[in-house]
Amino acid sequence: MRAEIHRLSMAHPGDVSALASLLQSRAVHARSICAIIGKTEGNGGVNDFTRGYFTDRLMTLLERYLNEPATMLAKRIPCVLSGGTEGVLSPHYTVLCRVDADGPGSIPALAIGTAFSEPTEHALIGTKAHAQSIAAAVRAAVADAGIEAMDDVHFVQVKTPCLTSARLAALQATGVPLKASSAGQSMARARAAGAMGVAVGLGEMNLDAINDDMMLGDFAAYCSRASISSGVEVDCNEVVVLGNSRRWTGPLTVAHRPMQDAIDLDAIHDVLGDLGLPPSRQVGALHRDRIRCVLVKAEPDRRGAIRGQRHTMLNDIDIDPQRHIRGAVGGLVAGVIGDTRIFVSGGAEHQGPDGGGLIAVIAERAAQQELTGE
Amino acid sequence: MRAEIHRLSMAHPGDVSALASLLQSRAVHARSICAIIGKTEGNGGVNDFTRGYFTDRLMTLLERYLNEPATMLAKRIPCVLSGGTEGVLSPHYTVLCRVDADGPGSIPALAIGTAFSEPTEHALIGTKAHAQSIAAAVRAAVADAGIEAMDDVHFVQVKTPCLTSARLAALQATGVPLKASSAGQSMARARAAGAMGVAVGLGEMNLDAINDDMMLGDFAAYCSRASISSGVEVDCNEVVVLGNSRRWTGPLTVAHRPMQDAIDLDAIHDVLGDLGLPPSRQVGALHRDRIRCVLVKAEPDRRGAIRGQRHTMLNDIDIDPQRHIRGAVGGLVAGVIGDTRIFVSGGAEHQGPDGGGLIAVIAERAAQQELTGE
Amino acid sequence: MRAEIHRLSMAHPGDVSALASLLQSRAVHARSICAIIGKTEGNGGVNDFTRGYFTDRLMTLLERYLNEPATMLAKRIPCVLSGGTEGVLSPHYTVLCRVDADGPGSIPALAIGTAFSEPTEHALIGTKAHAQSIAAAVRAAVADAGIEAMDDVHFVQVKTPCLTSARLAALQATGVPLKASSAGQSMARARAAGAMGVAVGLGEMNLDAINDDMMLGDFAAYCSRASISSGVEVDCNEVVVLGNSRRWTGPLTVAHRPMQDAIDLDAIHDVLGDLGLPPSRQVGALHRDRIRCVLVKAEPDRRGAIRGQRHTMLNDIDIDPQRHIRGAVGGLVAGVIGDTRIFVSGGAEHQGPDGGGLIAVIAERAAQQELTGE
Amino acid sequence: MRAEIHRLSMAHPGDVSALASLLQSRAVHARSICAIIGKTEGNGGVNDFTRGYFTDRLMTLLERYLNEPATMLAKRIPCVLSGGTEGVLSPHYTVLCRVDADGPGSIPALAIGTAFSEPTEHALIGTKAHAQSIAAAVRAAVADAGIEAMDDVHFVQVKTPCLTSARLAALQATGVPLKASSAGQSMARARAAGAMGVAVGLGEMNLDAINDDMMLGDFAAYCSRASISSGVEVDCNEVVVLGNSRRWTGPLTVAHRPMQDAIDLDAIHDVLGDLGLPPSRQVGALHRDRIRCVLVKAEPDRRGAIRGQRHTMLNDIDIDPQRHIRGAVGGLVAGVIGDTRIFVSGGAEHQGPDGGGLIAVIAERAAQQELTGE
Repeated sequence: MRAEIHRLSMAHPGDVSALASLLQSRAVHARSICAIIGKTEGNGGVNDFTRGYFTDRLMTLLERYLNEPATMLAKRIPCVLSGGTEGVLSPHYTVLCRVDADGPGSIPALAIGTAFSEPTEHALIGTKAHAQSIAAAVRAAVADAGIEAMDDVHFVQVKTPCLTSARLAALQATGVPLKASSAGQSMARARAAGAMGVAVGLGEMNLDAINDDMMLGDFAAYCSRASISSGVEVDCNEVVVLGNSRRWTGPLTVAHRPMQDAIDLDAIHDVLGDLGLPPSRQVGALHRDRIRCVLVKAEPDRRGAIRGQRHTMLNDIDIDPQRHIRGAVGGLVAGVIGDTRIFVSGGAEHQGPDGGGLIAVIAERAAQQELTGE
Repeated sequence: MRAEIHRLSMAHPGDVSALASLLQSRAVHARSICAIIGKTEGNGGVNDFTRGYFTDRLMTLLERYLNEPATMLAKRIPCVLSGGTEGVLSPHYTVLCRVDADGPGSIPALAIGTAFSEPTEHALIGTKAHAQSIAAAVRAAVADAGIEAMDDVHFVQVKTPCLTSARLAALQATGVPLKASSAGQSMARARAAGAMGVAVGLGEMNLDAINDDMMLGDFAAYCSRASISSGVEVDCNEVVVLGNSRRWTGPLTVAHRPMQDAIDLDAIHDVLGDLGLPPSRQVGALHRDRIRCVLVKAEPDRRGAIRGQRHTMLNDIDIDPQRHIRGAVGGLVAGVIGDTRIFVSGGAEHQGPDGGGLIAVIAERAAQQELTGE
Repeated sequence: MRAEIHRLSMAHPGDVSALASLLQSRAVHARSICAIIGKTEGNGGVNDFTRGYFTDRLMTLLERYLNEPATMLAKRIPCVLSGGTEGVLSPHYTVLCRVDADGPGSIPALAIGTAFSEPTEHALIGTKAHAQSIAAAVRAAVADAGIEAMDDVHFVQVKTPCLTSARLAALQATGVPLKASSAGQSMARARAAGAMGVAVGLGEMNLDAINDDMMLGDFAAYCSRASISSGVEVDCNEVVVLGNSRRWTGPLTVAHRPMQDAIDLDAIHDVLGDLGLPPSRQVGALHRDRIRCVLVKAEPDRRGAIRGQRHTMLNDIDIDPQRHIRGAVGGLVAGVIGDTRIFVSGGAEHQGPDGGGLIAVIAERAAQQELTGE
Repeated sequence: MRAEIHRLSMAHPGDVSALASLLQSRAVHARSICAIIGKTEGNGGVNDFTRGYFTDRLMTLLERYLNEPATMLAKRIPCVLSGGTEGVLSPHYTVLCRVDADGPGSIPALAIGTAFSEPTEHALIGTKAHAQSIAAAVRAAVADAGIEAMDDVHFVQVKTPCLTSARLAALQATGVPLKASSAGQSMARARAAGAMGVAVGLGEMNLDAINDDMMLGDFAAYCSRASISSGVEVDCNEVVVLGNSRRWTGPLTVAHRPMQDAIDLDAIHDVLGDLGLPPSRQVGALHRDRIRCVLVKAEPDRRGAIRGQRHTMLNDIDIDPQRHIRGAVGGLVAGVIGDTRIFVSGGAEHQGPDGGGLIAVIAERAAQQELTGE
């Protein structure tokens, strides 16, 4: 197997013409598409409908090629969208494909796996049981990817359900004690459970060591390979795993690093170094095309300061804190890469160090590396 | 003379307690203060009153020490505030002081000069005549700073008046043909005239070579040392010049670079190199304290793309384009410096390359440099 | 013929399930649908994609019943959406149908007509020629509606194209002198031309009496029956006319009134009186169901004050002025009607008195009126 | 005693020139001022500094006339400001004065009383104890006003402290179990305690009947005469009571009504009727000047719908829910009064019916009433 990556631009959230062209010219076969990860230009909040709009158009496009209803496709092909292209960020989507290829490569190559869990019971959202269910899905996706060692996993994207006001009210009526008092809190708790679930799935944490109170309680517990989004539009846990495996071939590889805070420039340079890119201030034109996908999670520091200096993200009622942080971290990462097609997602609770987050990058190996590897 | 720089934090836009402490302990003498440049946490727009609030508190504080009414002080001490601490940016203000010192130094040191022009006639705002008046004030401020060569000027901050809706209507009633159709356009035109004025004042452009149509028309014409803000709160042009001069002594020095676009990371590293800071990904802890003030102008690219990739800043009616760009460029610069106390101001028409802007930094020379200089 | 009105709610901008149910149960026949007018919950600006999302879903739904591609349907069935349900406003859409009915009624009943013009040349957008083209389409829609006297027309909705930044640049390159300097200004000029066009089409103004300089120049010239929206998504002028005609039958009727300013409560009561509703503070429960569609245009007063008191809508860079005014006028109209499903649209240049706008209401006649009519 | 009311406009949040003129011309004596209630044009959130800016300028102005430091004045003259003049609302402030007058009047006239409690312990904020302390302050203010029967009280404005992130962290460190998990929640709980406190103080509720769980729990418990604002800028509870008393004289009187929901038009008309204004759609020009102050509390319905129709205020991350509701209810009330100088404040938990709020109006009695009274 060989992973192929297509990073495509969109003119607006309803524009899937770039993929349509690739499908029509048979540069991409619809059947090879295993996941989509992208940034749309909404506000990234509950009332961001650009994610639904894009997903709708995408699945309608694939329906034509796969003779399967769009609604069914949406239940087996993860389409993970993060709303909000603040600052320099450019709306784009990355199509992850799995194509047949001769024999395994001599060196580990990018491996992609996906899995869907059973629907999550509403009463369990944001609890240890939720984490446990996600852990199982993560292991299934790792197996699907054919990754043998958990250390070879570098990025796990999870989409997981949350409670709405209506669901909260229904639960309350049945006497279930609620951990969350609003839809927003439920989303945060679901992301927390997701991060713990990934940690358990990857063997970083022991299931016995986690409990409900750690969720949004103990921020020393985190997973630097977990990227969780939570939304009302999903019923079960959708998982995309990215790692390296000798069972796969091709020039692509993936690496990741935790970010200690929102201005952790070293983490960005370090992950590029991990991928064999030569040291530079900004990635040079020669090497820039080797970088095929950049995935970042970030969070406004909940203590209200970065390296001792007060920030104002958490108290601004005009701009949502997540919009603030995506713009700032997006500017930093885009500056180092020299490209504004960066996936930056907020809501990074337990996903990397508190107040920081993580960065994962997919890149082509240099020709030389390939040779050295052989 | 010796320049002293105090970079102070504020807990909110009415908080001048940090300066009050320095004045009370006589660490700063009120009479030495020649200008203030800072960032407050408003939205940076017409309806940002954090600038007025801070100025009011600051002048009321100085009134107590200088026995001069606050309203008079505001007319001779420039207080340049940029609203908007988007993303990681931290509200802060830099107090620029001029203190007596023994004899001139052997190597050029930071020099500060200020000047106020006559009030600008409303009909002339945003025209060549406006630029001419600013050019004269720039030359007066350069002379006040004791800077001998124009090449030694690295940053010129101008605050200049603009037209309000009421003033536009009054002008129209007198039959004056209007270049601007709204207060916002008038602000942009005033900034354009300001940039041209600085260029002429510094000898970069010839007065004969500029005309009204270039303002917001010919973006190939720019000045990389001009930082212009325009507002209804001023009647005349206020100018602060920063440069290096052998007539001044002390460890501080200033440098600047144009930024080609919003992710021009090289420009940031280059200006640090100009100041003698050793190459590094992020300025290290050892050298970070040497950096005393970072001043940036930036602008969302009016062509709608950065390095060929579409951005969405200009079409977002929820977040003002200037808020977008400050957050992104602020994140990038703070990442390189390792400090979030960065002055980033939007509205950079003709102030640096189109779609980019400029960066100026004040830093202490390294001990070694001082020796080498001798 | 008989007009039928279905006012339907949506759970989100991709939700057309209410209409789907009516189509499936044959309560509505797809072929009878002649226009849709609705409010979606976006921000109402250039970057509001809820309009496109809803239109996409709606046309895809109709495609299934009409065996005609969605893209073709969009070119013959006007779908006029206004983004922004600020304050109490509720997302909803009104489906206007034309069904066969026995013989004409004895009293005038609601009549609906539509028309599409040829595509508008970009160089002509916002000019007298643009208005002339719209006037012709208005007359075609009046004829389509079978309305005999222009006085019987009460509401004309026009969707008309505008210039984008790209189109502006292309025009400038060909040497065409531009009236608008930005996409936003072009939208405003297009709306102005649309209002003039409706006025001419309805015979309120003489074509010879209008000229390019009146657009956004002479606000004493207006049309209280014109509701214009402008957007990049259309190439030609789409027109929906609502009036009363003896050729139609059924219990519905329409009336309209200009609003003198944003708090013109009398206008709202007057239009209800025109429709035969009994005087009341708020429409009572008994009569409320008779009101089937409420259409409002409004505008923040450009002079910055309402009845002598300053307002802050035009200077707020956090909330778009049109979002402000929709919320305020929507609150007032919803309060009188006792129902929050109100179509309130901003951008009311020349559509009603300056600083005000207009209100049109479709209602069922009272049983008594019906009798009196006979 | 006689109450005098001065409703003054401001050009911006730092503009107290209208009051300055009245003081200078001796139309108002500084010593007579007992409270100020106003609307400033900020966003109304935690990061709204227009309230602090205005208070600062106001107290500095009074300092000159009262020979008492501004900081001391702020501790004895309540200055209650609500940020946010969304939609048609006009920034303004009402100065409430108490002047000497000959003997008591024959009919009850507007009475004003104020009180300040001891500082509230942080651990008690939002609890029954907090409510108890507020109840005592309310009773003190009623006594100060010389109002004999609790039924004669029509409006009680309370400013009360809340917890900040820092205070929450400090409490958590001491092991106090926290009811609120964020500053925003603490503000809501403090407002809830305030409403209960007013209810107890006015004898509407029995102290024994209230408990901590009712706060934000049982919305059937409310007080239609309580208007509570909570903020970090106060340490103790500040109370302003408005009612009618025979101990006061003059033409002014006050009335109030609960609002059942955000479009409760009847409540507005009813309160005008209570004040003797003749029935009308909009208050006519003849009677409009009799209305001297309009005070409204409102709240987006937490159940997500108004009279069965979905609203979108609670899910919009671009516009704060409180900004939405102020704009809508402000538009409605301004429409009935025919004047946009309306005090509309959000955060109406337990202050009037759930999803609604309250309205109180101060007006001059008609000449005829005066006669009838005698």
